[in-house]
Amino acid sequence: MARLSQIAAIHSDAPVDPARFGTRGARLNLMAGLGLPVPKGVVLSADAVAEIARSGTIPDLPEWLGQGLLSLRASPLNVEWGGPTAIMNIGICDAALPAISARVGALGAQVLYRRFVHSYATHIAGLDAEDFEASIPDGEARVATCKSMYEAETGEAFPQDPEAQLHNCLRHMARAWNRPTARILRQAKGAPADAGVALIIQQMALGIGQGLSGAGAAQIVDDQTGAPMLWGRYLAQSQGQDALIANHNAVGLEGLDEVRDALLDAGQRMTRAARDAMQFEFTLENGALSILDMQPAKRSHKAAVRIAVDLAEAGIISRRDALLRVDPRNLVDHLHPRIEPDAPRDIVTTGLSASPGAATGVMVFSAEAAMTAKSQDRPCILVRSETTPEDIRGIHAAQAVLTMRGGMTSHAAVIARGLGVPCIVGAQALQLDMARRCLHLPDGRELPEGAPLTIDGNSGQVLFGAVPMTRPSLDGSFKTLMEWADETRDMQVRANADTPVDARVARRFKVDGIGLCRTEHMFFEAGRLNVMRRMILAEDAQGRRDALDALRPMQQADFVDLFEIMHGLPVTIRLLDPPLHEFLPRGSAEITALAAEMGLSAEALKQRIRDMEEVNPMLGMRGVRVGIIMPEIYEMQARAIFGAAEAVRRNRGTTVVPEIMIPLVSANREVELIRARIEAVAAEMQAGAGDLPEYRLGAMVETPRAALRAGDLAQSSAFLSFGTNDLTQMTYGLSRDDAGRFMRAYVRQGVFAEDPFHSLDLEGVGELLLLAAQRGRETNPDLVLGLCGEHGGDPASIRFSKLAGFDYVSCSPFRVPIARLAAAQASILAAEPDR
Amino acid sequence: MARLSQIAAIHSDAPVDPARFGTRGARLNLMAGLGLPVPKGVVLSADAVAEIARSGTIPDLPEWLGQGLLSLRASPLNVEWGGPTAIMNIGICDAALPAISARVGALGAQVLYRRFVHSYATHIAGLDAEDFEASIPDGEARVATCKSMYEAETGEAFPQDPEAQLHNCLRHMARAWNRPTARILRQAKGAPADAGVALIIQQMALGIGQGLSGAGAAQIVDDQTGAPMLWGRYLAQSQGQDALIANHNAVGLEGLDEVRDALLDAGQRMTRAARDAMQFEFTLENGALSILDMQPAKRSHKAAVRIAVDLAEAGIISRRDALLRVDPRNLVDHLHPRIEPDAPRDIVTTGLSASPGAATGVMVFSAEAAMTAKSQDRPCILVRSETTPEDIRGIHAAQAVLTMRGGMTSHAAVIARGLGVPCIVGAQALQLDMARRCLHLPDGRELPEGAPLTIDGNSGQVLFGAVPMTRPSLDGSFKTLMEWADETRDMQVRANADTPVDARVARRFKVDGIGLCRTEHMFFEAGRLNVMRRMILAEDAQGRRDALDALRPMQQADFVDLFEIMHGLPVTIRLLDPPLHEFLPRGSAEITALAAEMGLSAEALKQRIRDMEEVNPMLGMRGVRVGIIMPEIYEMQARAIFGAAEAVRRNRGTTVVPEIMIPLVSANREVELIRARIEAVAAEMQAGAGDLPEYRLGAMVETPRAALRAGDLAQSSAFLSFGTNDLTQMTYGLSRDDAGRFMRAYVRQGVFAEDPFHSLDLEGVGELLLLAAQRGRETNPDLVLGLCGEHGGDPASIRFSKLAGFDYVSCSPFRVPIARLAAAQASILAAEPDR
Repeated sequence: MARLSQIAAIHSDAPVDPARFGTRGARLNLMAGLGLPVPKGVVLSADAVAEIARSGTIPDLPEWLGQGLLSLRASPLNVEWGGPTAIMNIGICDAALPAISARVGALGAQVLYRRFVHSYATHIAGLDAEDFEASIPDGEARVATCKSMYEAETGEAFPQDPEAQLHNCLRHMARAWNRPTARILRQAKGAPADAGVALIIQQMALGIGQGLSGAGAAQIVDDQTGAPMLWGRYLAQSQGQDALIANHNAVGLEGLDEVRDALLDAGQRMTRAARDAMQFEFTLENGALSILDMQPAKRSHKAAVRIAVDLAEAGIISRRDALLRVDPRNLVDHLHPRIEPDAPRDIVTTGLSASPGAATGVMVFSAEAAMTAKSQDRPCILVRSETTPEDIRGIHAAQAVLTMRGGMTSHAAVIARGLGVPCIVGAQALQLDMARRCLHLPDGRELPEGAPLTIDGNSGQVLFGAVPMTRPSLDGSFKTLMEWADETRDMQVRANADTPVDARVARRFKVDGIGLCRTEHMFFEAGRLNVMRRMILAEDAQGRRDALDALRPMQQADFVDLFEIMHGLPVTIRLLDPPLHEFLPRGSAEITALAAEMGLSAEALKQRIRDMEEVNPMLGMRGVRVGIIMPEIYEMQARAIFGAAEAVRRNRGTTVVPEIMIPLVSANREVELIRARIEAVAAEMQAGAGDLPEYRLGAMVETPRAALRAGDLAQSSAFLSFGTNDLTQMTYGLSRDDAGRFMRAYVRQGVFAEDPFHSLDLEGVGELLLLAAQRGRETNPDLVLGLCGEHGGDPASIRFSKLAGFDYVSCSPFRVPIARLAAAQASILAAEPDR
Repeated sequence: MARLSQIAAIHSDAPVDPARFGTRGARLNLMAGLGLPVPKGVVLSADAVAEIARSGTIPDLPEWLGQGLLSLRASPLNVEWGGPTAIMNIGICDAALPAISARVGALGAQVLYRRFVHSYATHIAGLDAEDFEASIPDGEARVATCKSMYEAETGEAFPQDPEAQLHNCLRHMARAWNRPTARILRQAKGAPADAGVALIIQQMALGIGQGLSGAGAAQIVDDQTGAPMLWGRYLAQSQGQDALIANHNAVGLEGLDEVRDALLDAGQRMTRAARDAMQFEFTLENGALSILDMQPAKRSHKAAVRIAVDLAEAGIISRRDALLRVDPRNLVDHLHPRIEPDAPRDIVTTGLSASPGAATGVMVFSAEAAMTAKSQDRPCILVRSETTPEDIRGIHAAQAVLTMRGGMTSHAAVIARGLGVPCIVGAQALQLDMARRCLHLPDGRELPEGAPLTIDGNSGQVLFGAVPMTRPSLDGSFKTLMEWADETRDMQVRANADTPVDARVARRFKVDGIGLCRTEHMFFEAGRLNVMRRMILAEDAQGRRDALDALRPMQQADFVDLFEIMHGLPVTIRLLDPPLHEFLPRGSAEITALAAEMGLSAEALKQRIRDMEEVNPMLGMRGVRVGIIMPEIYEMQARAIFGAAEAVRRNRGTTVVPEIMIPLVSANREVELIRARIEAVAAEMQAGAGDLPEYRLGAMVETPRAALRAGDLAQSSAFLSFGTNDLTQMTYGLSRDDAGRFMRAYVRQGVFAEDPFHSLDLEGVGELLLLAAQRGRETNPDLVLGLCGEHGGDPASIRFSKLAGFDYVSCSPFRVPIARLAAAQASILAAEPDR
């Protein structure tokens, strides 16, 4: 005989312990306590169920369960572990039919009986469900046929004793829990070897029969928008989850006027008790409502924001909780257009979703064509094998970008994310035929340039033609949540912004400054590139200086724009970084033209270009190395920066203290040499203009050595900014341009848990960041620390940056809201270290 | 009046304190104590000299200095700090002439008088030496003319009071010490601001006059060989260092028979006292020997070994001291031919000395031409703009290599050092004209292919024609020193050896094993390269397997050779490392030929090759990444290794436990995946052959992340070997192939103290090594640690490896003796941590 403590009543004032009676058992007890119409029943503890599995002995059940039909459901100790399928309508038999018919009508009783025989036969007796169904003809005689089928297959008559039915179901479910497959599946989810399951025996709410009878699931918020409304699925004359599983016959809740208030009231009670919008299973039996279970309400990413804000505004949760409820990554759905959830999709191929959002336009195969389309107001999609810096203006002009090669951190991906342009990269199944100006599809067809295409940057799908879209929304609860985030966070969020367009987007997203302005992009603009090339190809320092003198006013004008847009917010300008050969022409025609302009033979120019080629440009003469070998370049940039700050002060009255950042440092002497040059420029500006220009000089930590020697760097630097893209490349010995060939296979085989260019590698790169932060601050307690790689927009990396004591993160403009929320969450979590 | 302690007598039994009386003062006191004929004199302490400089007050000097002529020399407190020029013959004047003439003859007296007036005029009175000499006609009247010149220039008669002469000289030298130039120079050498100088006043040994008179320097070991013999320079009728300074008239010591025994005796005393062979300055005055100073004997790098061994065998120093006396780097002179020290050099240009030794031969411009020359027994020099892996057989065939491009760790440099072939790289002033098959020299001339050239890999000089050479020598004292080194060291020295030739050289140099066998070089051999290419270009894993099946017996034969040569010593085989595209052809002709062999169009093959190109091959798909994506390659290599070990066991009875090393690891899961593959191959071999093959698996630590995660790697690895070349590249973010463009400027400007590819960067890379060693051993106390980069042959890096607790270093075969000695020194120094 079972000890009393092995059975708990659902309708009990004593709380039911989930560690013994499972999560569902505890939840039903809670729901009953809320006054919800939960059917009466008991929970058998996991130890009681284990004993049933071992000995077959069933504990005594309370008399009050009565003679009605019963359901039997699993209540696992952990919600992740699954459990055997529920069995309903236990207790129906020939002798019980009259009573059931009186309750639900003769037809309903037949249906219930047939359903029970069917589940008992397939789940308890183990007969094949398809065989069993196929061999039963339609019609009135089905219960009888079912029973004789059962007898024929098992050699025994269908059990007619309700207690025997219940006991067999209990024994079966107790043992099913211990079957090897079930055991392996739950152990894979982290369950211990001796994990138990509790079982719930409840009176049935029948859902089949007379009057308003059926079952469904409801929630009191819209699943797409999160707005308050009664929303769900319902199927008349059904039981359990029929409305959700066989949902082609299910309908909305519009027809349930008579129970509408009861459902709303139930939802509100659950919301308050669970401190979240809930979805709940309900059954109607002849108009009487029963509630069977609840779980968090279904919600889109947008709805999640509305729900969290509404709960906080209703005082049900705190603002802190509201901030933690939203996954920052899901905010992208507020920032970009999306394809309507139910729109039909004609999928051409799938690539890597490199930049979120969706766009439709005509295909163009060159940056020029994109600019032409833009000038004609025709939305276009730039399609390239891969993009180069010279395509930047084309990317600006396009609605979306599609490339055949490259990974998540390829040029196209990085630029598109920065601009908030939807982008798919690595669509390897497509082939671009530039000779015939068409795109070969994997199925052998071809699409000509100019054909309409839709890019879904969220899923990576490339779609034929145009598809209906939803618009982005930055107000309402999104705006409220962002305001709360800004009140909460204590880490700055800056943007990686190279152009006025970037800077304006960033300000629209309420950024705290520019953390990374890459000056090289400025030199790719028309009218500048050839001057830049003359500088690079000059015979000596004087030749370089002449060309730089021509570039300086243009560069200064760029900085004036940025300073004006940012209006006194900090702007960190990175001195020239890429290897100079990146600026040189590659095509013959361009080389010939440049040679003519320079008074050289094309052959001589080609030789000069060849001489500059590098085996590993990533590890070559770039960054501060160029600055030290050709000091006149950084001197020009310093002059342009100081000149711009002075012009903005004079014309607008805005004080700008530019932050000048030195890239690719590996030894502090590099910082010292550049500092000396910049100080000389500043002194020279003073002599001309009056005041000594104010500025802050810092180093970009992109090499492992810079991280290790951060204590040295901090002696000569006001700030250190971690360029985690390059730092990841160097730490792994892995070029992001080349990793695409094997990264997917690597992640699939679990070599890397995640692409380290996507999610910061805490164990390797992260250790270097921590080490550098600690060493830098030891030398210089006022050292400002920031993170400005792609990871600056990744919530996990932002949390890490907060824990590492960084002052700011800097990310693509379109990730600024994500970073603001992630920074707020990081502040909350940092203040509660035990979470 | 000076306190007595401000003056010390040279001939005193009380030791003279070098901290107050300078190093020379203390040394002369020591020499006098040995019974050497050191002229009598005193030393004025640095504080006495400072007082002279300040107040002009001269302390009382002892009477016994007498009326003879005196010399005045500086005795700085630190030998590095220099000091004012010595003044000789102080005290000569008209009144003293008769006495001096009686001592050295009238002519000698005139010469001494004239010399004194000259030095006094130029050094003390500050007259211009050239003016002063030019205006004095030859002949007897020169003393008188000198004196009147002096009077005319200074307005004062030449001083005739010996005491006044001495006092003026003392005051002058005391003040000269404090002149700004002298002060800055010595402060640059680390002298403190208040650094002092002592002064030595000594009776003159005249060297000019009657009988056997003159001065010189002697040592009792040959400066080139270190063999015992009286060796030096001597100039009759001279004083001080005349024989060394104006050495065109100086001669050897052959004519000095009457003082030969005295010189040998003096030399032996000094050797015993100073515990080193010494060179000493001596003066003969009418046959009487005086000794004026001593310093360590001049010695070539070869002589240094002989001297150290001879001293130890004579019981003058310990073997420990002998081992510490030799700079390991200088052993290269024993291992390679050298240009005779006095041979005339007709220098074409100078490049980077990438591999030591010298060689003469005819210029060849291709690997094929080198092989042809070798087949005709004509010594040749391979001259290339830069070398590629396909040139390796040409480098093997050549006596030396000369390239126009690349740095100390370019392909040519690394391969040549490994083979012990003299090599100069980066001779940028030369231009190779392959069309006209000639070499353009910086002066506009051209040399045709086939012209004779000499390469001096020690100095980096390229010389016209043939030059006489000395031969290498590995016996005698070199052999003895190496034996002592092996008895002393407790760290293994292995070789980086890829071929039987390498392995034999390494064994000749008494190596402890092979620490790095790069298997890729094996695939460049004729008859294999095209099979390799077929493997690389195969459509699928099966195509690769077919080609690999053809390669396996060849690879297995290579390993059999290595295992047999190494005869049971450890052999560490690195699995394939370079990116596969390195094996593909580049030239059109080769591509066409390969396409025909593969049944492809040349255009299709070109496209395949282009598809494999990488932006940064160093950071791309190479090393273990290839092994994971195409597992059949490492499987083939494992089969070949196990097969070879089994064949050697069966045929020779030698047990080989191969060490298999996985390159370019950045996460331990990489090691685990490869381990699983290799274990499967081993199991399969067991099924075929009987015993489970024995082997040890380890990881090569070349990425910063591998170093940081060494604790993980140690769980799956029996050993970790640090590839410091790549680790340096990744830590600095600096490709050795591309660093050549700016490395010299960087070192010149002090950005890097030294080229980190040449001398291990202890602060950055070194910290990673220490961290990895500590973390690895924490996880796995039996973990074997080795260093196998180019730094494995660098003494400072070897010392570091010892301190870091490494078990072995592995270096180029030709650096093995250097490493053995450096390892011995490291063991000695590690046992005496206060040194």
